[in-house]
Amino acid sequence: MAQSVLLTGAGGRVGRAILSRLADAYEWRLLDRDPPTGEEPGEFVVADVTDEAAIREAVEGIDAVIHLAGDPRKTAPWESVLPNNIDGTRMVFEAAVDAGVEKVAFASSNHAVGAYETDERTPEMYRTDSEFRLDGTELPRPGNLYGVSKAAGELLGRYYHDEYGLSVVCVRIGNLTKGRPPVDYERGQAMWLSHRDCAHLFERCLEAEYGYEIVYGISDNDRKYYSIGRAREVLGYEPRDNSAEHADDG
Amino acid sequence: MAQSVLLTGAGGRVGRAILSRLADAYEWRLLDRDPPTGEEPGEFVVADVTDEAAIREAVEGIDAVIHLAGDPRKTAPWESVLPNNIDGTRMVFEAAVDAGVEKVAFASSNHAVGAYETDERTPEMYRTDSEFRLDGTELPRPGNLYGVSKAAGELLGRYYHDEYGLSVVCVRIGNLTKGRPPVDYERGQAMWLSHRDCAHLFERCLEAEYGYEIVYGISDNDRKYYSIGRAREVLGYEPRDNSAEHADDG
Repeated sequence: MAQSVLLTGAGGRVGRAILSRLADAYEWRLLDRDPPTGEEPGEFVVADVTDEAAIREAVEGIDAVIHLAGDPRKTAPWESVLPNNIDGTRMVFEAAVDAGVEKVAFASSNHAVGAYETDERTPEMYRTDSEFRLDGTELPRPGNLYGVSKAAGELLGRYYHDEYGLSVVCVRIGNLTKGRPPVDYERGQAMWLSHRDCAHLFERCLEAEYGYEIVYGISDNDRKYYSIGRAREVLGYEPRDNSAEHADDG
Repeated sequence: MAQSVLLTGAGGRVGRAILSRLADAYEWRLLDRDPPTGEEPGEFVVADVTDEAAIREAVEGIDAVIHLAGDPRKTAPWESVLPNNIDGTRMVFEAAVDAGVEKVAFASSNHAVGAYETDERTPEMYRTDSEFRLDGTELPRPGNLYGVSKAAGELLGRYYHDEYGLSVVCVRIGNLTKGRPPVDYERGQAMWLSHRDCAHLFERCLEAEYGYEIVYGISDNDRKYYSIGRAREVLGYEPRDNSAEHADDG
C-alpha cells in the first residue's frame, strides 16, 4: 500500500513541482492556508501552519510529512518567520512525533548558508573551475532572517530526531525554476533545481532510510558550490538535469 | 576610560559571578526583570528582555553587551524559550547593531550540544582518559528545547556578525558552581566552570578582538570533553581552576 503523506505548503512552487510528477505515487493529504484553485490529488486541508489543532489533526494516520509551509520570501521580516517558519516548523515536528509519523522531509533553503557567498569568494565560486563546496557538515551562515529561520528548523529537526527517533531530512533547496534554468545569472545556474529533479529528490526522501540528514537540493549542474554527494549516498538521489545543458523539463 | 557594558540577566548566577569580580573594571548598566536586592555597581534597569523599547533604551551609549537574560531552565518549555531566549536574543542583537555597539558576548549553553552525550559515549566521555572533544566547529545537537533556543541564539549572532559586522562571541557555559565543583557527578566535574574562571572568561570577551566565535566556558578540568583551545587562542582565556583539584575559589 502506498505511503500516506502529508504535504504542507502544497500550493507553493515546490509543492506543485512534487505533485505534478508524484500525484499517483502516494496517498496525499495536502495542506495550505489558501484553498485549492483546481483538481487536487488528495484530501485538501485549508489551514495555517500555526494552527495547532489543525496540524495535529492533519498528521493523524500519516506515514511521512513533507513540510514546505512557511513564509518563502527571502526578505521576510522576523515578525513573520518567527511564527510561521520557526514556531510552525516546531509544531509540525511535535505533532508528527505525537502521531507516530516515521519521517519528516523539511524544506530548508540555500539561504541558511547564504553568507558563505562573501565578496572574496564571488563570483568565482559560481564557476565551473571552482572547487569550493558546501556539503552540509558546515555550520550554517544565514544570509538573511529567512535563512536564520530555516537553519533554526534544521536545529529543531536535529532535536526531534535525537530525542524521539524521528527520521528527519533537511533539504537545502536551491533555485527551483520550471523549464529552463536562469539565464545570465551565474549564482542561479549554480544552484538550479529542475522540477523533475525536485520531485525525484523528495520521492527519495520518502523512500530512503536515514536518521538525521542535511542535504543540498540542486540538479547536477556543471557549476555548483553545493555538494550533492550526501544526497546521492544516503537518499539514492540521481539528478538528470544540468543547468549547463539548458535542459527543458517542461 | 573604562568600557560601558550592558549586562542583561544581571541578577542571575552568571551575572553574579561576573559582577563579584569585575564590579570596578567597567561602567556597568545592569538589566534584569527582577529589581535588585542590594547595592549594585551601576545603573540598574528593571525590564524584561522581550520589552523592545526598554532594550533599545538600555543599549544606548553602550560599548559592549554581555547578554545572559533568558529562561535558564533546561526543562523550560517551548512557550517560554521562544519569546524569552530566541525572540529576546534577536531583539538584543538588533538593538545592539542599531545603537552602534561593538561587541556582544552571548551566554549559550552546554545544552546546545547535549545530545552528543549518547548512551554509547557515556560515561566514558566524562573521564580523563577519554580523547573525545567538542571544539565549537561541530553542528549543534541540542539535548532539549532550551538547548535549541541557545543554538538558535548562536545562529542569530552569526547573522548579525556577517550582515552588520558586530563582533559576537557565543560562550557555551558549562556547569557554574560557587566554590567547589560537584561531587560524585562525573558530567558536572567535566564541565565545571569556577566563578573566577567565569569572570575572567567574560572579561576576555570584553577585551579581546574577534569576529564571530563559539567557545566553551569551562575551567581547565582534568576531565573534559569540551576543548578550551579556541577560548585560549582567540580570547586569551587562561583558566586557573580544575575540578580535579577541588579548588575553592570562594
